[in-house]
Amino acid sequence: MALRGGIDLGGTKVEAIVVDDGHEIRGQARRPTPTEGGPPAVVRELAAALREAAAAAGVEPSSLAGVGVGSPGEVDTAAGTVARAGNLPEWDGVFPLADELGRALGVHVAVGNDVRLAVEAERVLGAGREHRSFLGVWWGTGVGGALVLDGKLWLGRGMAGELGHVVVKEGGRRCQCGRRGCVEAYAGRGSMERRARKAEELGTKTKLFEIMRKRDRTRLTSGVWKVALERRDDLAVALVTEAIDALGAAIGSVQNLADLDAIVIGGGLGTRLGQPYVERIAEAAQRHLFVADKPPAFALSELGDIGGGLGAALLVSA
Amino acid sequence: MALRGGIDLGGTKVEAIVVDDGHEIRGQARRPTPTEGGPPAVVRELAAALREAAAAAGVEPSSLAGVGVGSPGEVDTAAGTVARAGNLPEWDGVFPLADELGRALGVHVAVGNDVRLAVEAERVLGAGREHRSFLGVWWGTGVGGALVLDGKLWLGRGMAGELGHVVVKEGGRRCQCGRRGCVEAYAGRGSMERRARKAEELGTKTKLFEIMRKRDRTRLTSGVWKVALERRDDLAVALVTEAIDALGAAIGSVQNLADLDAIVIGGGLGTRLGQPYVERIAEAAQRHLFVADKPPAFALSELGDIGGGLGAALLVSA
Repeated sequence: MALRGGIDLGGTKVEAIVVDDGHEIRGQARRPTPTEGGPPAVVRELAAALREAAAAAGVEPSSLAGVGVGSPGEVDTAAGTVARAGNLPEWDGVFPLADELGRALGVHVAVGNDVRLAVEAERVLGAGREHRSFLGVWWGTGVGGALVLDGKLWLGRGMAGELGHVVVKEGGRRCQCGRRGCVEAYAGRGSMERRARKAEELGTKTKLFEIMRKRDRTRLTSGVWKVALERRDDLAVALVTEAIDALGAAIGSVQNLADLDAIVIGGGLGTRLGQPYVERIAEAAQRHLFVADKPPAFALSELGDIGGGLGAALLVSA
Repeated sequence: MALRGGIDLGGTKVEAIVVDDGHEIRGQARRPTPTEGGPPAVVRELAAALREAAAAAGVEPSSLAGVGVGSPGEVDTAAGTVARAGNLPEWDGVFPLADELGRALGVHVAVGNDVRLAVEAERVLGAGREHRSFLGVWWGTGVGGALVLDGKLWLGRGMAGELGHVVVKEGGRRCQCGRRGCVEAYAGRGSMERRARKAEELGTKTKLFEIMRKRDRTRLTSGVWKVALERRDDLAVALVTEAIDALGAAIGSVQNLADLDAIVIGGGLGTRLGQPYVERIAEAAQRHLFVADKPPAFALSELGDIGGGLGAALLVSA
């Protein structure tokens, strides 16, 4: 039986798995993403995490059929390179990730876009299984997306899926990308955190940062937001409501144009907040649906945190 | 040689053509769309226009390989019906247009969505010929759209292409569809006319209505807008600029998600205002493009007013 490796390279953690032909997980390991040392440091952690997962599965990395890596930044799958990965340390240029990690592990490595691979995993193994066409909405630090059309990821000229930069408010809030009114400026967790910090500085009472510190975090993670919502923190509720409204407008726009079967919600915040928030997003989108009596199905990602690794492993043909 | 008929059924006029195997026009006729009498009156005008075009081509309607009709409203091509066509007289219910017109002409009739057929004609014969994937933006009374992906019209579950109801401003202007912030509420000629009338009532000076009356019109047609822009009428310039900004935001959103090869601008206003306005729309979209250094090509529809009829004739296999 051929085993395959899959690594989800995130801004905060590296998740490595080893799966069998049936996509069952045979070994798993998680390590923090280095915050310094540039691409070489990241390669070392990726290799270490994969070796750990392989050891848990009782095999050597070199005996795997291959290893897939889902990465943020600009990924060139054909060349095996990753460029301008803003959430990774000192990763501005083009780095040959597939070659370097392949050398470290002694096995063939392929790289792909993190959100696309997670959505591909949902298509094959998760919430997208029963839908020919759907939009994956990956709600996390940013807002990622991927379109599945007629059972295949739609890549456009290679850069499709920038759902986060769908415009929901002409002339609206400034986005990290420098443009105005992008959905990510309202719904990205990064943007929500900046807004929360500013509101607190200006005197708004909120439990968000107290919860953050109690959980030994330096950022407002999805878990922090979840607890704050459970405690009905006014600021958290207001910012999440604004995020949901923006997601609803963006999803409504896509649906009006493409008339898809389904919307699948994933990503750190999507997964953590879960089904009740999928329903709130569906309600927010409903307000914009032109064919109001035939909304798409709304589903929560089924694979959660492990989807990225499973999708990465799909890059390797068993 | 098999000749085919094509009819573009618009809110103001009916355009009928007869084409040969090479899509060359062999006969043509134009009649005003009836403003009363419901679907039966429309069928009579469609039949009369097609008979005239056939006569110009030197044939009987019954000798055609078939006749295609591009219609507004909710078109069911399989059933041959048209429902809820708001721009046609007393056309609220479901009407069997293909059967009734077929009976009147003694020939097989097929019906399709007007914008889709015009975009299909551009794909096969016009500005879309060289592009595998493009968005057709039909800028007229409303804002219509159609997506061509990998050389094929994308239909979704049957209702794809409602570009006019892509949201450009959450909580923004009320659209005729009842929702808020749709691009059509800013860029549809119908909405622009309502705004212009209200502004004039409130005392804004404008030449729009004087031009309209001189041209013997009761509505602000695309030709009226064009003349007003040429005369640098402030209100016309302001409303058209706002429309272009909204179109740019909607196109930018679609491009960020789908990464298309090209955008093709057509429709009454698009065709009439022509290339300089295509360039302005491209600039407005550019402001929202996430992959700013690789914009799609922007092209004006090549078939203009006749595209609808040519696309309708494509419904008939020669």
